[in-house]
Amino acid sequence: MWWSGKLLLALSLALPRIGTQVFIEPGQSDAEIDGWFARMEECGMDICRIRMFEEYGPELFDKAFDAAERHGIKIFATLFPADPDRSIGGFKFPFTERHEREIADYIRRFVLHFKDRECLQGWVLLNEPGTEGVIPDRPYTQDAFRRWKESHPDTRSDAYAKLSDFDREAFLTDHTTGFLAWIAEQIRKYDTVHDLHVNNHQIFDNIAEYDFPAWRGFLTSLGASAHPSWHFSYFSRNAYSDAMAANCAIVRSGAGPLPFWITELQGGNNTYSARNAFCPTADEIRQWMWTGIASGIEGLMFWTLNPRAVGGEAGEWGLLNFRNLPSDRMEAASEVIRTMKARPEVFSGVKPAGGSITLMYFRESLWAEAKVQLGDLHDAAYEGRHCGGVVKSLLGFYEMFLRKGMDATICEAREFDWQSAGFSGRTIILANQICIPSSFEEPLRNFVAKGGTLIAEGLTGWYDENMKCTFQTGFGLRDVFGTSLLECKCTPGDFKADIGSTVQNVHLWYGILEDGQPFSRHSFGRGKAVWIPSCIALGARRSGDYRSLFKLVSKDIPYGEDPVIKKAGTGITMLNFTSGGHRYSLVLNKGDRRERVALTSRPESVVYASKGARLSGRRLRTRPEECVIIRW
Amino acid sequence: MWWSGKLLLALSLALPRIGTQVFIEPGQSDAEIDGWFARMEECGMDICRIRMFEEYGPELFDKAFDAAERHGIKIFATLFPADPDRSIGGFKFPFTERHEREIADYIRRFVLHFKDRECLQGWVLLNEPGTEGVIPDRPYTQDAFRRWKESHPDTRSDAYAKLSDFDREAFLTDHTTGFLAWIAEQIRKYDTVHDLHVNNHQIFDNIAEYDFPAWRGFLTSLGASAHPSWHFSYFSRNAYSDAMAANCAIVRSGAGPLPFWITELQGGNNTYSARNAFCPTADEIRQWMWTGIASGIEGLMFWTLNPRAVGGEAGEWGLLNFRNLPSDRMEAASEVIRTMKARPEVFSGVKPAGGSITLMYFRESLWAEAKVQLGDLHDAAYEGRHCGGVVKSLLGFYEMFLRKGMDATICEAREFDWQSAGFSGRTIILANQICIPSSFEEPLRNFVAKGGTLIAEGLTGWYDENMKCTFQTGFGLRDVFGTSLLECKCTPGDFKADIGSTVQNVHLWYGILEDGQPFSRHSFGRGKAVWIPSCIALGARRSGDYRSLFKLVSKDIPYGEDPVIKKAGTGITMLNFTSGGHRYSLVLNKGDRRERVALTSRPESVVYASKGARLSGRRLRTRPEECVIIRW
Amino acid sequence: MWWSGKLLLALSLALPRIGTQVFIEPGQSDAEIDGWFARMEECGMDICRIRMFEEYGPELFDKAFDAAERHGIKIFATLFPADPDRSIGGFKFPFTERHEREIADYIRRFVLHFKDRECLQGWVLLNEPGTEGVIPDRPYTQDAFRRWKESHPDTRSDAYAKLSDFDREAFLTDHTTGFLAWIAEQIRKYDTVHDLHVNNHQIFDNIAEYDFPAWRGFLTSLGASAHPSWHFSYFSRNAYSDAMAANCAIVRSGAGPLPFWITELQGGNNTYSARNAFCPTADEIRQWMWTGIASGIEGLMFWTLNPRAVGGEAGEWGLLNFRNLPSDRMEAASEVIRTMKARPEVFSGVKPAGGSITLMYFRESLWAEAKVQLGDLHDAAYEGRHCGGVVKSLLGFYEMFLRKGMDATICEAREFDWQSAGFSGRTIILANQICIPSSFEEPLRNFVAKGGTLIAEGLTGWYDENMKCTFQTGFGLRDVFGTSLLECKCTPGDFKADIGSTVQNVHLWYGILEDGQPFSRHSFGRGKAVWIPSCIALGARRSGDYRSLFKLVSKDIPYGEDPVIKKAGTGITMLNFTSGGHRYSLVLNKGDRRERVALTSRPESVVYASKGARLSGRRLRTRPEECVIIRW
Repeated sequence: MWWSGKLLLALSLALPRIGTQVFIEPGQSDAEIDGWFARMEECGMDICRIRMFEEYGPELFDKAFDAAERHGIKIFATLFPADPDRSIGGFKFPFTERHEREIADYIRRFVLHFKDRECLQGWVLLNEPGTEGVIPDRPYTQDAFRRWKESHPDTRSDAYAKLSDFDREAFLTDHTTGFLAWIAEQIRKYDTVHDLHVNNHQIFDNIAEYDFPAWRGFLTSLGASAHPSWHFSYFSRNAYSDAMAANCAIVRSGAGPLPFWITELQGGNNTYSARNAFCPTADEIRQWMWTGIASGIEGLMFWTLNPRAVGGEAGEWGLLNFRNLPSDRMEAASEVIRTMKARPEVFSGVKPAGGSITLMYFRESLWAEAKVQLGDLHDAAYEGRHCGGVVKSLLGFYEMFLRKGMDATICEAREFDWQSAGFSGRTIILANQICIPSSFEEPLRNFVAKGGTLIAEGLTGWYDENMKCTFQTGFGLRDVFGTSLLECKCTPGDFKADIGSTVQNVHLWYGILEDGQPFSRHSFGRGKAVWIPSCIALGARRSGDYRSLFKLVSKDIPYGEDPVIKKAGTGITMLNFTSGGHRYSLVLNKGDRRERVALTSRPESVVYASKGARLSGRRLRTRPEECVIIRW
Repeated sequence: MWWSGKLLLALSLALPRIGTQVFIEPGQSDAEIDGWFARMEECGMDICRIRMFEEYGPELFDKAFDAAERHGIKIFATLFPADPDRSIGGFKFPFTERHEREIADYIRRFVLHFKDRECLQGWVLLNEPGTEGVIPDRPYTQDAFRRWKESHPDTRSDAYAKLSDFDREAFLTDHTTGFLAWIAEQIRKYDTVHDLHVNNHQIFDNIAEYDFPAWRGFLTSLGASAHPSWHFSYFSRNAYSDAMAANCAIVRSGAGPLPFWITELQGGNNTYSARNAFCPTADEIRQWMWTGIASGIEGLMFWTLNPRAVGGEAGEWGLLNFRNLPSDRMEAASEVIRTMKARPEVFSGVKPAGGSITLMYFRESLWAEAKVQLGDLHDAAYEGRHCGGVVKSLLGFYEMFLRKGMDATICEAREFDWQSAGFSGRTIILANQICIPSSFEEPLRNFVAKGGTLIAEGLTGWYDENMKCTFQTGFGLRDVFGTSLLECKCTPGDFKADIGSTVQNVHLWYGILEDGQPFSRHSFGRGKAVWIPSCIALGARRSGDYRSLFKLVSKDIPYGEDPVIKKAGTGITMLNFTSGGHRYSLVLNKGDRRERVALTSRPESVVYASKGARLSGRRLRTRPEECVIIRW
Repeated sequence: MWWSGKLLLALSLALPRIGTQVFIEPGQSDAEIDGWFARMEECGMDICRIRMFEEYGPELFDKAFDAAERHGIKIFATLFPADPDRSIGGFKFPFTERHEREIADYIRRFVLHFKDRECLQGWVLLNEPGTEGVIPDRPYTQDAFRRWKESHPDTRSDAYAKLSDFDREAFLTDHTTGFLAWIAEQIRKYDTVHDLHVNNHQIFDNIAEYDFPAWRGFLTSLGASAHPSWHFSYFSRNAYSDAMAANCAIVRSGAGPLPFWITELQGGNNTYSARNAFCPTADEIRQWMWTGIASGIEGLMFWTLNPRAVGGEAGEWGLLNFRNLPSDRMEAASEVIRTMKARPEVFSGVKPAGGSITLMYFRESLWAEAKVQLGDLHDAAYEGRHCGGVVKSLLGFYEMFLRKGMDATICEAREFDWQSAGFSGRTIILANQICIPSSFEEPLRNFVAKGGTLIAEGLTGWYDENMKCTFQTGFGLRDVFGTSLLECKCTPGDFKADIGSTVQNVHLWYGILEDGQPFSRHSFGRGKAVWIPSCIALGARRSGDYRSLFKLVSKDIPYGEDPVIKKAGTGITMLNFTSGGHRYSLVLNKGDRRERVALTSRPESVVYASKGARLSGRRLRTRPEECVIIRW
């Protein structure tokens, strides 16, 4: 195929932007600072992020902005007002109203100082909002909660007692949105031009605190911190690329029409920081970057080019080594950038494939799960009922699809387009979504009535928003499923069970429906509702084998003719995307040996292979840790 | 044998009463409520329990009482004043004096409202007193403690320093008794007729907080909550029937001349509630019910017929499924009821056999054990010195006897009849009773002098009520045992040791007596005292093999000619009872395979077998999970 | 060899002194007390320690002093003012100024009462200072911290931000020193003659709180509590003799020119006290005593002859059994005493050999390690980054040397004689010393320049005293090592790596230097600096095999011609000492089988063997648990 030079240039400008945090602090020499920007330029990076510590005054950062301009690097400036607690990640809410005024003053000073710099890309409102459910016990937040309660009177009408509510949880979500909106408003007083961005973090734990649709109102792009050593504790190391894909899927859905970024990606080693400390390999860097690119990111920035010099993370996380030269990780990043730039027709305007399958979660399911915890329980035989059971069930399905090379989106119920005229060919999977607010019954009913396929698994639908057990009081979607839950039985650990003519690995909870069967398929309107009220997704995930889960559910999922994986080892995953009218797939080999991946169609060619993968017909041979991009 | 119809009727009236909690809350329809009582009637139940939430007013419960009367069901009404903390199980003590007055008012209103209902069986004073040792830090209790201290001045006379006391522990026990007595007094102001009942719970942890003999003064029957998923954490699942037997034995001794009940028995599934969540099988329901019946219960009620609809336990614990039809558990219960009713000559007036062997515990041993804990220690190699070591040692003996089909009672020292004229043929076992208050030295001496057999094991007698090491300062029962402890040696974990011509599994502590031997047998008066100052009961329990323990101690236990198990797998247990002048035994097979149980005598017949057990001579063949009742 | 009687007598007086705590409390009879001192005398003990509880008045202790004088026993009187908290080990700091005055008054009364007793050896200032890093939240200490801060203004000049400081840690160390000095001052008001002693404890955790050089100013000897069940949690049971040797090495270095003692050595059984409870065997008692003697102790006292009778340790820890007769442990102690007395020419004036190898630690490395902890992390795969990683790395080297029979000292940087004219033949090992204060750069440079060998391992040098990562900002010892760290990579758990032509067991962190190599050797001045920036000492320790570690580092360690172990099982250790101009070695066999120890030279003879060890040429045959002393 022939591409004009002009077109290639235009495409290059639309490539995902790759960059990194530069950590600017007192004590650094001008030469060091310039050198860091030079390193970025040499490696093909064109974007960076700088934490704008209030303590170091706006002036300290001038030389970084100068260097950025010298080396053609754009800057996302992360607002970082002085933290009364001096925490490493910064506060998430003002402490008092006076503190809020101080923050406003800081924003004014810093925005006015830098807003006219040519290299300014935009502002990051706050580093990593999200508190793992903790509502700070401080005046500012207490007052906000009081006002929130006044404006959210309890209007639930239910004959049953209202023993529980989600006020604290809903407030925390709104409070986070409110503070971010307030920051955006402050910035917009002085700068109406540049990007406004924010990076959520630890998505699998904090997901229920983020009201992404509301954030879209004041952001120009949405981002995520995605550090395996801090944020991927639900995954083993060889599944960190799965986690990266899932993280991207969640944020992409949250962003909606906005572009999304991986705002922070672990770039280097941990010594004492991070829970599951490790140093990424060059292969892992490649895998995560390609996963982000295949997921349709607008850009990606590592944390961090140069380590901070002092304090809790001193000497950690760096892409550069201590001589300020590229590590093997930086070289891998550079190689990915070069590969992209060499094939702009492939890597610009990437759109993730699919969209017909939606893994849907309800914020309330996570809230309910957190509410019913009994405390300090770590028995692995009860993993499914500890915090994380809801999300891990969803991930079980997501990982299953990745292993088949099928594309699934992950979205919160409020992010879904319920208004579509028809849902034929669409599938929603509710994996162990233990709480479905009653307001979503009608949308779900409509989804099926208009042709959609609804699959419910695990304890989906157990509670409503009053923590009322809907199966006890009358299941609202009875008409849709054509049945209701008869019984659920708990057996700690994992066990095999015959479900729908397959043998499933069930974890903890096994349910039967009113006809005594553990599986039902029911036509409703123009659609279909499938129900497996047992924890088979988490069972599959715990066993590491997703085949029987796939065998059971795939029959009912309309997926079309897109090529998928026919057979491969459990370490093989495939993410699909399109660009320039072509379909591509990113295949990763996270197994510990060479694999032959059997595909359902014959790909056209290998676009990229990090370890020499070869195609022969419908078979792809690949080595451990390899990244391959094929074109169909 | 021939029975007149009239006699059968009379006997039927004396059968154990089986029923269940009905959970009444707003939102339920009249049809639902009536349906639940109809289900009970159909299943042969004639008694139920209702939690009388203050919040729902007396009126809400009227329809339940009406339905009960329609279906011939009696009601135990559980008083449940509004809990300022809204805890799921209710408060255990008033918060303030004002709160106490509010409680009194609640009692007045509810008792007056229902006292004349024909279906009223009686009142449950308080749901599950017992706090796992926690003394609430609230005015009502603080004041009570102050007054308690004034009326319990320290009169201990001991040359040694008084570094420790059991004031807090003794106060908590008295405080619990005091509040229960106060509630009973309030009820009796308005209702002098109906039963007064209370259900302790989590007996193996809370046992030292319950002064059962004192409770007898205001109760008409004593009860217990016995939910394996909450209360049997000292047992593995296949030993829950052992736990049920032990729980009954403890409560039966506590009840003394009063009848006793299993007031709450887990009837259904757990999702998020209960520590060791699970769903009982129909077989387990049978095993627990027969265990209760063989233990001489006056009645038994499940928790719960219908699940509560809202909050922490929503949809859990139900005997009925979500269609309000009987689960397999309810059907099993119904089958047990039918079996009982078909053979009233066997199952009415059941008296548990035995009584010659007493496993005695001292409240102070548990208090002392709790006092010497170092904190957060979970190393299994030290199980014996963590909280529970005292009780588990006792259970080791109890389980050993169950596996031989020998009958042992479990009683707190204050529940024992020390005044008997003679103790010939009687045995007291002190299993690792680390604290013997000096006031019990004389009763124990008298017991042996008058013909009793006293067996001491483990660290029995280490402390007195001043936490003074009696072996260091002069062992008060030296004359009785003819020796004292020379040394104890701690070796973490378990090890084998030659003791009294047997090889024992010793856990943690191995002791030798003054002659350097680990075993002594001594005649004193007309009795005998045996001492094994090593933790062999816990050693046996941890090994799962009680044979060498039995071999060592059985020689010295006078037991008579009653038939016992000669040989059987470790999963076989046997509980004996008499009724109508006959001896019966309940044999359970909790092993994982078919077993031939060799008995020392030839039973007359099989009265009941849940899985077709067969007798041939002295051998009983039985299947896993089976319950068998044989007649001798 | 011929020894005159007079000389032997003189030598006998210089033998290590062996004794024990006698626990004096109310309730004891005069006969008991006298009997205890008689037991000590019979066993050859001549020194004891008594805890002088304020509560029991000075008078109670008079009879103990009388008995001591009758039986020729000297007394170390441990000051023990009444503890407002009644803790078992006593307070570590006054609570208030008023409390301080009360303590002064107590000291005055007790010192005046006993200072003229002939049997008085001296005073122990305070039982076991050291708080595991906890600064009490009480007025006395808060005020002291305020004053300390005023007198220690922050004078750090560093271009980088000062995000961290060690103020709390340095204060705690000074506060401990200050209170001990104050006690010494109080005593010296009334008694200027007798010994002043103090016993640190739990040395491997508390080591960074003790400023031993400062203590020398007011002590006449330094001591240690060394109870394996409380203090040796970094060691498995079969390595407790390693722990004892290391404990002695640390305290010996701390004592400097002063004599040092094992002030408390576990003498008996634990029931409920102590974290890793156990009862020492007679063999262990021998091993620990000989380890102390070979380490050059001035004396050793057990805890305790007679158990305390009441409270938390009642009946525990005793050397005597409950009949007040010697246990096998007491007999073992007595045998050791007899052996010493029979060979005074060997055991008097013992000087530990060596001194050429120094395992150096920096208080700041432990402070830094504690500061960067993330909380409740117990994953064994991260042992090296939990508290203890620094000390365990040092211990890895120490244990390696013990297994080769080479002598290493352990000293805090401030205890080292940096002023020596030359350091030829000397080696300093910095095992994972993650923080080197910049003030020690020049002394270390000078050490190498003047001929010393410096070996750095693990993350040594990562931080300076500002918690600044020196590798990031410019490594101060770059000239000495000829390189700096390029990168460190974290891999949880353990792995093999080629380092310096050997295969090492690396734990967690693997580092490479600027040339990309994991090992460097560099000549600087007249000395040499070796750097292995990977955790190989902890890797060796975790694997239990120190051979490859030794293979790597031994080439660079100048050690001379002293005989060492050529080959032996991993359970064999050897400590060397000299006396009367001869060299001796203590060989322990802590393996589980007979061992042939191959030595590099032929010993002259076996001086002592607890289980019949035999020499044949350069081979020593020894049995499990044996102690052997050989003469070269």
